[in-house]
Amino acid sequence: MFKKTFDNVRKSCPLVHNITNYVTVNDVANVILACGASPIMADDRTEVEEITSICSALNINIGTLNERTIESMLLAGKKAQSLGHKIVLDPVGAGASALRTNTAKELIQNIQFSVIRGNISEIKTIALGNGTTKGVDADISDAVTEDNLEKSVAFVKEVAQKNKCVVAVTGAIDLVSDGTKCFVIRNGRAEMGKITGTGCQLSGMTAAFIAANPDDTLTASAAAVCAMGLAGELAWKKMADGDGNSTYRNRIIDAICNMTGDTLDEGAKYEIK
Amino acid sequence: MFKKTFDNVRKSCPLVHNITNYVTVNDVANVILACGASPIMADDRTEVEEITSICSALNINIGTLNERTIESMLLAGKKAQSLGHKIVLDPVGAGASALRTNTAKELIQNIQFSVIRGNISEIKTIALGNGTTKGVDADISDAVTEDNLEKSVAFVKEVAQKNKCVVAVTGAIDLVSDGTKCFVIRNGRAEMGKITGTGCQLSGMTAAFIAANPDDTLTASAAAVCAMGLAGELAWKKMADGDGNSTYRNRIIDAICNMTGDTLDEGAKYEIK
Amino acid sequence: MFKKTFDNVRKSCPLVHNITNYVTVNDVANVILACGASPIMADDRTEVEEITSICSALNINIGTLNERTIESMLLAGKKAQSLGHKIVLDPVGAGASALRTNTAKELIQNIQFSVIRGNISEIKTIALGNGTTKGVDADISDAVTEDNLEKSVAFVKEVAQKNKCVVAVTGAIDLVSDGTKCFVIRNGRAEMGKITGTGCQLSGMTAAFIAANPDDTLTASAAAVCAMGLAGELAWKKMADGDGNSTYRNRIIDAICNMTGDTLDEGAKYEIK
Repeated sequence: MFKKTFDNVRKSCPLVHNITNYVTVNDVANVILACGASPIMADDRTEVEEITSICSALNINIGTLNERTIESMLLAGKKAQSLGHKIVLDPVGAGASALRTNTAKELIQNIQFSVIRGNISEIKTIALGNGTTKGVDADISDAVTEDNLEKSVAFVKEVAQKNKCVVAVTGAIDLVSDGTKCFVIRNGRAEMGKITGTGCQLSGMTAAFIAANPDDTLTASAAAVCAMGLAGELAWKKMADGDGNSTYRNRIIDAICNMTGDTLDEGAKYEIK
Repeated sequence: MFKKTFDNVRKSCPLVHNITNYVTVNDVANVILACGASPIMADDRTEVEEITSICSALNINIGTLNERTIESMLLAGKKAQSLGHKIVLDPVGAGASALRTNTAKELIQNIQFSVIRGNISEIKTIALGNGTTKGVDADISDAVTEDNLEKSVAFVKEVAQKNKCVVAVTGAIDLVSDGTKCFVIRNGRAEMGKITGTGCQLSGMTAAFIAANPDDTLTASAAAVCAMGLAGELAWKKMADGDGNSTYRNRIIDAICNMTGDTLDEGAKYEIK
Repeated sequence: MFKKTFDNVRKSCPLVHNITNYVTVNDVANVILACGASPIMADDRTEVEEITSICSALNINIGTLNERTIESMLLAGKKAQSLGHKIVLDPVGAGASALRTNTAKELIQNIQFSVIRGNISEIKTIALGNGTTKGVDADISDAVTEDNLEKSVAFVKEVAQKNKCVVAVTGAIDLVSDGTKCFVIRNGRAEMGKITGTGCQLSGMTAAFIAANPDDTLTASAAAVCAMGLAGELAWKKMADGDGNSTYRNRIIDAICNMTGDTLDEGAKYEIK
């Protein structure tokens, strides 16, 4: 199912404009290259509209937002929307500060996102006005589990409907919904949480996938989520004695780089609810 | 001695707020995760007080300071202090410019740090008003050696007393003192100096260690210094033909990731003076 | 021919001031260390003149420029020039936005650069006022090939003459000219384009090479270009099954770290036109 979706990324090499945090930005750029797309990072208000115009997708990540870049996010987002570009929001740490919560809300009010991708606490914050975010990580009490799966699926569908976009909640179980259907994805490994920025990388890659598959944002988003999780699984198999989270980080990006549409189709573990 | 100290980090998973430079920030985040803690980076003045409030330690690093972030450092530091949080200062490049020297001094005047960690030239700059810093590296003429050890120990004790905090001077020989006792640490390898940011990583890790061991900042700081040096030794043993400083960087973080309290206890090389 | 050039870098350990983008800054720092020099990153307008004064070269890279750092670039550049320091410009993305194009031009008008290094689209933008940049990558239609080599050499010589500096155009074939002679370099691998920042790394390394060889900027620049390309070749030979662009990135920096003047002399593939 995802083979063609992934092949389209490598075939069309979409240019992705990223306004993202300085913590994980290098990995975001390398994973976008690894999946076959091309990244450009630009955050000055006097150029973001022009830069986003030459791209086919925009990835907004508030991981190290500041007053200057928030303005740039709004300008770039409105411009990208006016051009019909695909736009991803990664509301890093929404719930951890009023600035993050309010900025996420302001962005959502002003920009029609194609995909909002975050951990469950961040998405709860956006939907309910509050969450129990532990810094930039999800709170365990919020986690999507087999026990609360039906309820969680219903929740994510509702958030997607309300925001008229695809919502991707990632964690031990990932949920990706457009409000009607919901992919329940069981790829990935817990050890990915020991690396900074696998979520940021996924958001960047999602922007590439949806840009290359403009007619099916839901499938493209689910494919990106499966690809990231599968990369975590394949990378883990390569881990040798003495390897730790830094090597794991490299091996995950390597796994995306070596992944084919066929590998993705074989390794993707999902059901649709 | 350090087993329990390290185990406490993995058990309590402290959240560490970092206002740090954009050069080494990714490695700082990954090493904080590797040792069992959780990092959050936030530097906007409108959110740093709130972010630091949900954390248990603050790590201030002036490696790429600017007018905007200096204000944020002061705000976050004062807030963290008012909450009784642990606070680390890494005065990167103090002595290399008036801005760095003066900012380090201003931070120290306004905030009661728990630990100040730097190379010998940076610490001399703070203590004596001047040092012979070579950019962000220590000047060779300042180095702590076996020959000047007694004098150096006395100096570090004095700086610690004057600043009412733990002072950690790292180099070929590391000195960590609270003004009364001084750990003389002989872990580490010279090749670590060929990697950007091992000092920054150590400061981030120190914040995690002291947050998890609130009653013994001296021991916790010394444990972090030993852990970083030991990681450098263990990582070096893994180096294969053709490996260089980039692989070494990854292997050091990997070594922290795989380190246990027992490994640390066995490998720590220190005496107390 | 390049042995002495490279040996001079390791012998003199020049301190290089970098005002560069936050995407690839860590790799730039590590590659500068790998080649034997020392990096310092500083971009606040109140310290850049002082910082650049203690360095022997300045590397200006506009990859994530903003209003604040553009001012710093101009201040640092003018100061470095007044001190007779070597200065490199990497006009990342010139042609992709008016801000980038105009900033590159403003920097060139106000600062006498020693070397301008970019991809062919960026250099065409600088020379002709426009290029067909695809984001931060060169447009294929601009590429230097065996077919248009004579014309391309003539073009690069002309740009070098006009700007009174060395111009280095890197791509499948690299051209490095001072306006009279032109090195045509055939080191490197296409896969290097799948890593973010090999160009940024080269600019940082070029600054180190020309600082250590003040009397022959042309040869030093050509040596840096050959070293980077050769590192790409040597690193590729180390690639194992499952390795991808992230591991390749590490191995390239490792290859610079392990490179000797002799290795460089043996592996450099160039002719002079």
